[in-house]
Amino acid sequence: MKIGIIGGGSTYTPEVIEGFIIKAGDLGLTEVVLMDIDGERLRVVGDFAKRMVKHAGNPFKLTTTAARVEAIDGADFVLTQFRVGGQAARHEDIMLGLRHGLIGQETTGIGGMAKALRTIPVILDICADVEKRAPNAWVINFTNPSGLITEAILNHTGVSRCIGLCNVPIDMKMMIAKHLGVDDADVQMDSVGLNHLGWVRRVIVKGEDITARLLDFLAGEEGPKNIPDIQYNPELIRALGQVPLYYCRYFYNTPSVLAELKAKKKSRAQEVMDIEKALLAQYQDPNLATKPKELEQRGGAYYSKIAVEIVEAIAGDTGAEHTVNTRNEGAVPDLPASNVVEIPCRIGRDGVTPVPTEPLEPSIRALIQAVKAYEELTVEAALKKSRAAAFRALITNPLGPKSERASDVLDDLLKTNNLSYS
Amino acid sequence: MKIGIIGGGSTYTPEVIEGFIIKAGDLGLTEVVLMDIDGERLRVVGDFAKRMVKHAGNPFKLTTTAARVEAIDGADFVLTQFRVGGQAARHEDIMLGLRHGLIGQETTGIGGMAKALRTIPVILDICADVEKRAPNAWVINFTNPSGLITEAILNHTGVSRCIGLCNVPIDMKMMIAKHLGVDDADVQMDSVGLNHLGWVRRVIVKGEDITARLLDFLAGEEGPKNIPDIQYNPELIRALGQVPLYYCRYFYNTPSVLAELKAKKKSRAQEVMDIEKALLAQYQDPNLATKPKELEQRGGAYYSKIAVEIVEAIAGDTGAEHTVNTRNEGAVPDLPASNVVEIPCRIGRDGVTPVPTEPLEPSIRALIQAVKAYEELTVEAALKKSRAAAFRALITNPLGPKSERASDVLDDLLKTNNLSYS
Amino acid sequence: MKIGIIGGGSTYTPEVIEGFIIKAGDLGLTEVVLMDIDGERLRVVGDFAKRMVKHAGNPFKLTTTAARVEAIDGADFVLTQFRVGGQAARHEDIMLGLRHGLIGQETTGIGGMAKALRTIPVILDICADVEKRAPNAWVINFTNPSGLITEAILNHTGVSRCIGLCNVPIDMKMMIAKHLGVDDADVQMDSVGLNHLGWVRRVIVKGEDITARLLDFLAGEEGPKNIPDIQYNPELIRALGQVPLYYCRYFYNTPSVLAELKAKKKSRAQEVMDIEKALLAQYQDPNLATKPKELEQRGGAYYSKIAVEIVEAIAGDTGAEHTVNTRNEGAVPDLPASNVVEIPCRIGRDGVTPVPTEPLEPSIRALIQAVKAYEELTVEAALKKSRAAAFRALITNPLGPKSERASDVLDDLLKTNNLSYS
Amino acid sequence: MKIGIIGGGSTYTPEVIEGFIIKAGDLGLTEVVLMDIDGERLRVVGDFAKRMVKHAGNPFKLTTTAARVEAIDGADFVLTQFRVGGQAARHEDIMLGLRHGLIGQETTGIGGMAKALRTIPVILDICADVEKRAPNAWVINFTNPSGLITEAILNHTGVSRCIGLCNVPIDMKMMIAKHLGVDDADVQMDSVGLNHLGWVRRVIVKGEDITARLLDFLAGEEGPKNIPDIQYNPELIRALGQVPLYYCRYFYNTPSVLAELKAKKKSRAQEVMDIEKALLAQYQDPNLATKPKELEQRGGAYYSKIAVEIVEAIAGDTGAEHTVNTRNEGAVPDLPASNVVEIPCRIGRDGVTPVPTEPLEPSIRALIQAVKAYEELTVEAALKKSRAAAFRALITNPLGPKSERASDVLDDLLKTNNLSYS
Repeated sequence: MKIGIIGGGSTYTPEVIEGFIIKAGDLGLTEVVLMDIDGERLRVVGDFAKRMVKHAGNPFKLTTTAARVEAIDGADFVLTQFRVGGQAARHEDIMLGLRHGLIGQETTGIGGMAKALRTIPVILDICADVEKRAPNAWVINFTNPSGLITEAILNHTGVSRCIGLCNVPIDMKMMIAKHLGVDDADVQMDSVGLNHLGWVRRVIVKGEDITARLLDFLAGEEGPKNIPDIQYNPELIRALGQVPLYYCRYFYNTPSVLAELKAKKKSRAQEVMDIEKALLAQYQDPNLATKPKELEQRGGAYYSKIAVEIVEAIAGDTGAEHTVNTRNEGAVPDLPASNVVEIPCRIGRDGVTPVPTEPLEPSIRALIQAVKAYEELTVEAALKKSRAAAFRALITNPLGPKSERASDVLDDLLKTNNLSYS
Repeated sequence: MKIGIIGGGSTYTPEVIEGFIIKAGDLGLTEVVLMDIDGERLRVVGDFAKRMVKHAGNPFKLTTTAARVEAIDGADFVLTQFRVGGQAARHEDIMLGLRHGLIGQETTGIGGMAKALRTIPVILDICADVEKRAPNAWVINFTNPSGLITEAILNHTGVSRCIGLCNVPIDMKMMIAKHLGVDDADVQMDSVGLNHLGWVRRVIVKGEDITARLLDFLAGEEGPKNIPDIQYNPELIRALGQVPLYYCRYFYNTPSVLAELKAKKKSRAQEVMDIEKALLAQYQDPNLATKPKELEQRGGAYYSKIAVEIVEAIAGDTGAEHTVNTRNEGAVPDLPASNVVEIPCRIGRDGVTPVPTEPLEPSIRALIQAVKAYEELTVEAALKKSRAAAFRALITNPLGPKSERASDVLDDLLKTNNLSYS
Repeated sequence: MKIGIIGGGSTYTPEVIEGFIIKAGDLGLTEVVLMDIDGERLRVVGDFAKRMVKHAGNPFKLTTTAARVEAIDGADFVLTQFRVGGQAARHEDIMLGLRHGLIGQETTGIGGMAKALRTIPVILDICADVEKRAPNAWVINFTNPSGLITEAILNHTGVSRCIGLCNVPIDMKMMIAKHLGVDDADVQMDSVGLNHLGWVRRVIVKGEDITARLLDFLAGEEGPKNIPDIQYNPELIRALGQVPLYYCRYFYNTPSVLAELKAKKKSRAQEVMDIEKALLAQYQDPNLATKPKELEQRGGAYYSKIAVEIVEAIAGDTGAEHTVNTRNEGAVPDLPASNVVEIPCRIGRDGVTPVPTEPLEPSIRALIQAVKAYEELTVEAALKKSRAAAFRALITNPLGPKSERASDVLDDLLKTNNLSYS
Repeated sequence: MKIGIIGGGSTYTPEVIEGFIIKAGDLGLTEVVLMDIDGERLRVVGDFAKRMVKHAGNPFKLTTTAARVEAIDGADFVLTQFRVGGQAARHEDIMLGLRHGLIGQETTGIGGMAKALRTIPVILDICADVEKRAPNAWVINFTNPSGLITEAILNHTGVSRCIGLCNVPIDMKMMIAKHLGVDDADVQMDSVGLNHLGWVRRVIVKGEDITARLLDFLAGEEGPKNIPDIQYNPELIRALGQVPLYYCRYFYNTPSVLAELKAKKKSRAQEVMDIEKALLAQYQDPNLATKPKELEQRGGAYYSKIAVEIVEAIAGDTGAEHTVNTRNEGAVPDLPASNVVEIPCRIGRDGVTPVPTEPLEPSIRALIQAVKAYEELTVEAALKKSRAAAFRALITNPLGPKSERASDVLDDLLKTNNLSYS
C-alpha cells in the first residue's frame, strides 16, 4: 500500500506519520511519499519523519518529493492537507474581514470563501492527476474549508472515491466523554450538518440516551463555563434540543465573536506562525525521533487518529462508523442527493454509506441550505472565474455583507488574493 | 353566487365592491355579505357600499353583519381581509423592531412575525367555520402576511380550496408596462418566490423577450431613479439576471431601509391611520356613491382587480394565468411539494395549477428556504403556543436577531402582543 | 378512556376485547362501544363480549349500537375493522379476477381495488364524523386494504391522527423467532415497503445481525419447505439480500399463485364463511365467557396484540417501536413525503415518527412506486367516481390487465360492485 | 470543427453525411472521420461517402480508420452509432425473447437488456478515450438503447457533455404535421418520458392548442387505421388525455405485439439484413454520389436531421428546442435530478437545459419509474458483471419474466451473449 501526502511539509505531518507507524502492519503499508512545494519545510519535516520511521524499525519506506505526480502515481490513498498561500494568506483573510466589519475565519465567513477560491483550482489539478495516475485511489481531504473542497471534488471532478475529514466531530465526542468521565469508545454521538456547521442530535453512552441530561447541563447554571467556544444562549440549546458544534458560534453569536476578533492583538494566523516556527525548530533537532508534546497546541487534535482510522476502515473493510464529509444520497431527507454533508457513515472497501437520519429541524435546515448555496456558488465562481457567481456567493453566506455593501467587499477580496474574475 | 367578506369594514372594501359591481352579471353574483367586528367601521363602510350598489342599479344584494357565520354560511367565496389589532398593533410592530435595531415591517422581519402570531388563531377559526358551513367555498386570502397565512391554511386546516393574494406581482407588471409605454395586457411577466419575496425572471412583450433590456436599464446609469423601492445595487441585478420585487429591499438593503425607518417622524401605521380617518369621513358623505379617487393613496393598488379576476377565473373556468400563493406541488423543482409559493398559476373551476419553472438560482433559493423555514416555525409557534418554536422562528428570519440576542427580543414581542407561550 | 369499534360485529372482536380486558387498568379504559350495521351479528358478538367483560370483573363498560355517532362521540380511539359487503363481496372479487385470468385477492390485485372502491366512501364518512365529534381521537384502521385506506384518510380527510395496522410484519417476526428458537422480544426486524408489499432488510437477535444467516437458510436446500407463502425463487432472495414478506408472492410468483387459486374448490371467502358460521354458533353458547381456541384459525393472528400495544404506546407515551402505516415524511428517502408507507415507527402521545431508512434497492423501489401510483389512482377514482381514474388505476396495478384488455375488466368490476362511475 | 463517427460503417452514414454536406459552411466543419471495426463495411460506406463529399465540392475532408483514437483525437463532436454484434446479435435477442414467451425487441424488453449489456463496456471505453483525447468534445449518442446508454455515460463516466438522440419524437411530430396537413415548423409538440417510453402531452399549431382534437381523432372511429404502431385502446387515450408514442405499444398492448412477433416469418433483424445487403450493393456503384432513395426504407427516419440540428444548436449557440435525452435536473418534478429523461430541451453552447414540466400522471409516472429502475440495474450489472444485478434488472423490466421464472431466462440471456457474470 502506497500513501501520497500532498502538503507533506505541514507541521501536522509528524502526527499522521506516528499514526501510520503504529498501524503499518495492519494496513499493509509499504510506502509513504511526502510532497510539498515549500522545499525548506519539506526538508525539515521530511528529515524528521524519516527519523521517526527509522526509529520505529522502518515499517515502511518514506520519501519526499517536490513533484506531485510522484506522490500520486499508483497510490492507494492520496491525503491532501495543503494550504494555498500559507498562514500569510490566512492573516490576510482575517484582516479582510475586519476591514469590512465581517468575520474572516479560515473556514466560515468571507475568510473561508477567499481560501476556497484560492484552493479549488489546485485541488482540481490534483484530482486530474489522480484520475490519470491512480484511478483507484481514495482521496482523503483535510484541506480547509474541508466540506466545500469535498463538494468541489465529488460534484465537479471524475474522482468519486473521496472523503472529506474534519476533527470537530471527534473532538466534540472526546469533550463529551471527558465531561462524563467515560471512555470515548462507550460514547455514540449522532451529529448532522455540513463541515463546521453541525449539531449533535443524540448522545448514547453504553446504550443509555443521555441527550436530555447533556442539554440540561449545557443550558444550565453551571454550563460550559470554561469553554467559550460552546457558550451559547441557553434558550437556543433548549429550543433546539440539540447541541451546536463549536463552529456554529460564528453564526449564532456573531456580534460577540466579531468583538473578540477585533480585540485580539495577534490574529490566529500570526499565533500559528509563532507556533510553527517553534515546532520547525524543534523538528530540526537530530535527536528528536518521536512526535513532540508541543504539537498538540497546534490545534487539529485527533486529525491523525481519524485519518488512520479511515484508511483502516477502507483497507480492512471494517464497516466502522465515522463522521465524515460525503454525498448525502438521501441520508438527510431534506437535502438533495448530491449535497456533500458531514454525518455518521459506515466505511468499508466499497466506500462510504451515510447513515439515514431524521428530517432536520427547520431553523437548522435553513442555515445548512444557506451555507450549501454559498458553497455551490463559491465552487461555480472558482470554476468559471466568475465575478457574478462570487458576488452571489458573498451575499448568500450568512456571515457575508448585505447586497448593498457587497461590491466593495468583493473588490477587496479579489484584489487581496490576486484573482482576476470577470 | 354568494360572497362573504371577513373584515368587510376595511377602507379597501369600496374598491372590491366596485369590482364586483362591474362584473356581477358575468359572475352570476347575487349576494355580498360584509362582516366585521368593528361595528362603527362596518356601519360607515357598509352604508357607503350599499349606496354604491344601489347607484349601480342593485346588481346584487349587500348586507352587513357582526356574526361571522352569516357571512360564511353557504358562501361560494370567502374573502379574508382583516387586520387583528388594527393599525395600532401595526404601529407597535414597527416600534418593537426599532427598539431592537430590527425591521418591524408588517409582512417581513419581526413585525410580520408578530402579526402572523396574532392572526393565525383567527384564520384557523374562520377555516373551521368554512369547513362546516361552506365546505365547497373558496377562501381568497388578502390578510397579511398573505403567504404565511396561506401556508397555515393549506397545510394546517381541512380547507384545500384557498388562494393567497398579493398585489405586488401585478403592481410590478403595471410598473413595467408603464415604463415600456405598452399596454399591460401585452406584458407577460414570470416571477418566482414567496409572497413579498419574489424575483422577476423573464418579461415578454408581444412575444419578444425584453428581460435583458430591462435588466440593463435597471442596473444602468438612468436606473429607477424615482422609485426608491427598487433601487438595488446594480451589481446585484446583473449578477442575478433577475429583478427583485420591491419587498426584497428589506433583505438586500437592510442597513439603508433601517436607517430610513428610524428617520421617519410618523410610522407607516400612523400615516395610514390619518389616511383612513380622512377616507372614513369621506365615506360618510351621503351623496358619495362611487369609489373616491383618494382611495388609491391607501396603497394596495390593484387588489380589487386581482380579486375580481380570480373569482372570475374560478367561476367561469377560464384557465387564466395569475400570480398567486398556492402549494408548490413540484412547480419550483427545488422546494418541497407542500410549500406555499407565489408563482404564476392557471386558475379554473378545479383550482389552481402552478406553472412549472426552472430550478432556482442558488442565492435566491437559499433566501426563499430561510424565509419558508421561518414561516413554518411561526405557524408551529402559533398552533402550539410554543415559545421554543417562536425562538427558532425568530432566529431563522433573515431579518431577525442573532441567537445571543434573541431572548430579549422575544420577551418583548410576546409581551407587547399579550401572547402567553410556554 | 373511550374506544369505539366500527365493525364491532366482526368475529375478530372477542380477540380485541380479550386484549383490552388484560390491559384495561394500565390504559385507564372505561368504555368500549361496539358499532355494526349487521344487527344479528352485533347481538351475538356483543352478548358474548359482554359475558367476557363480566367474567373479567367488569374492568370497563361495554355497549353495542347501530348508530355510528354513538361509537365516535367523544372517543379517544376509533377502531375501524369493517368489511363493506361482507364475505359475499369478497367471493365476488375473487371470481371477478378468475373470470379474467387475474388475481382477485382482497388486498392486492383487482380484488383489492374493488374492495377499496367499495370502502373509501364509507371511511370518508366515518372520518367526517370523527372530525366533528371526536376531533382529538386516534383512528386505528384495520380495514383492508389497510395501507390504501390509510392513504385515503391521511391525504384526503382532515383526520391526521390515524394509524394503519396490519398483522403481517408482526406475524413474520413471530415466524422468525420461532424458526430461530428465540423469544420474539429478542428479535429486532427492520422491514420496509407498503402494506402487503414489504421486505425484511435486517434481523438482529440480541444485538447480533443474523440477516445473512437467515437469507442463506431461506435460499438454501432446506428452505421454508412447509410454508408455501414464502417459497420464493432462491435466486430472488440472494439477489435482493432481503426477505420478501409473504404477500409479495402475488407479485413474484404470479403464475403459480394464479394456478393455485384456480385449483381451489372453495374460494377463501367461502372458507371464511364456514369458519365464521361455526364461530358465531359457538359465541352463542351462554356458558362461553372467554375467547375460544378456534378463533385462531380465522387468520389475522396478532391483530389484537398489535392493536392493544398501539393504544398503549399512545396513551402511555411509551415511544415503543411498531411497524405501522403512516406518512413517509422523509423516512424512506426515495418516496415523497406524503406517501403512506409501512415501516418501523416510534409511537407516543404526539403521534407516529417513522424511523429513517436507507434508500430502497431499485427493483423494490419500482414495485413500491407502481403499487403506490395504483393506490393514488384508486383513491382518486373513488373520490371523483371517475371511470378514467379507475381505468388508469387498473392498468397501473402490477397484477392488473394490460391496457388493451382493461376496458372489459373494468366494465365487469364496476357492474359487479354496482358502481356507476363516469 | 472535427467530427468523429464511431460505427461509421453503418448503412445510415450516407444520410448523416448528406446532412453535414448541406450545413458544412454554417457549422465551420472541416473534418469528418469514419471509424469502424468492420473493415469491409467501412471500405464500402467510406468510399461512397467520399464520393458524396467530392460530388459536393469537398466542403470538408473525410477519412476512414479502424483506430478509434484517430476519430476521437481533438474532435469537437463524437457521434456513436455502432451496434455490438450487428444484426446477427439482434436476431438472437428476438429469438431469446420468443423462446421464453417474452418480447425481445432491441430497445425494450429483454432484447434491449441484452443489447445494453453488450454495449455498455464498449461505450465506457469510448468515453475514457474522449476524456483523455477530446475533453471538450460533445458525445452525441445514437446507439440503442439510446436512453439507457446515455444514462450510463452521464452517471458513470467523467463525460458530462453528452446528448442521447432518438428519432421517435421528431418522427411523431412529422406524423402529426402530416395528419393535420400543416408544415412541421408550425407544430409545437410537448412530450415527456424516457427514450422509447414517451407521451405527447400537448400539441400546439400556430399558437392554437389542438391536443383535445387530436385525442378525439385518435380515440375515435376513424382513428389511426393504417398505423398499427399507435392503435391503442381508445379508452387508454381518453383516460390519459395524452398520446403514447409508438414504442409504448410494447407495454400497453403486450399480448397483441407478442402474437405479432411470433407470427412473423422473418425477424426484424433478418429483414434489416436483407435491406442492408441491397443498400451496400448499391453503395458500391462507383457512379452513385448522392444518398439513394432506398435508404429511407431502413427505418430511423430523420436521424440525420436531428443530428445535424443538434450540432448546429451547440456550435451556433442557437438555444433551439429539441427533444433529447439528458439529465432531468428538476425538469420533471417527480423524478430524481440524476435520471436521464427524454424531454424538450433548449440547446446552446453551454449545453442542454431541459424545459420544466408539470408533474406526471401517476400511471405514466409508475411506468417510467419501473423502466428507469430496470435501466439503473442494467447499468450496474454491466459495470460490475453482476448476475444478481442482472437478475433484479430482468424482473424489474415490465416486459421481463416474473421472478419465479427469471433464472432460466437469465441463464439463456447470459449464455447467448457469452457474458460471464458472477
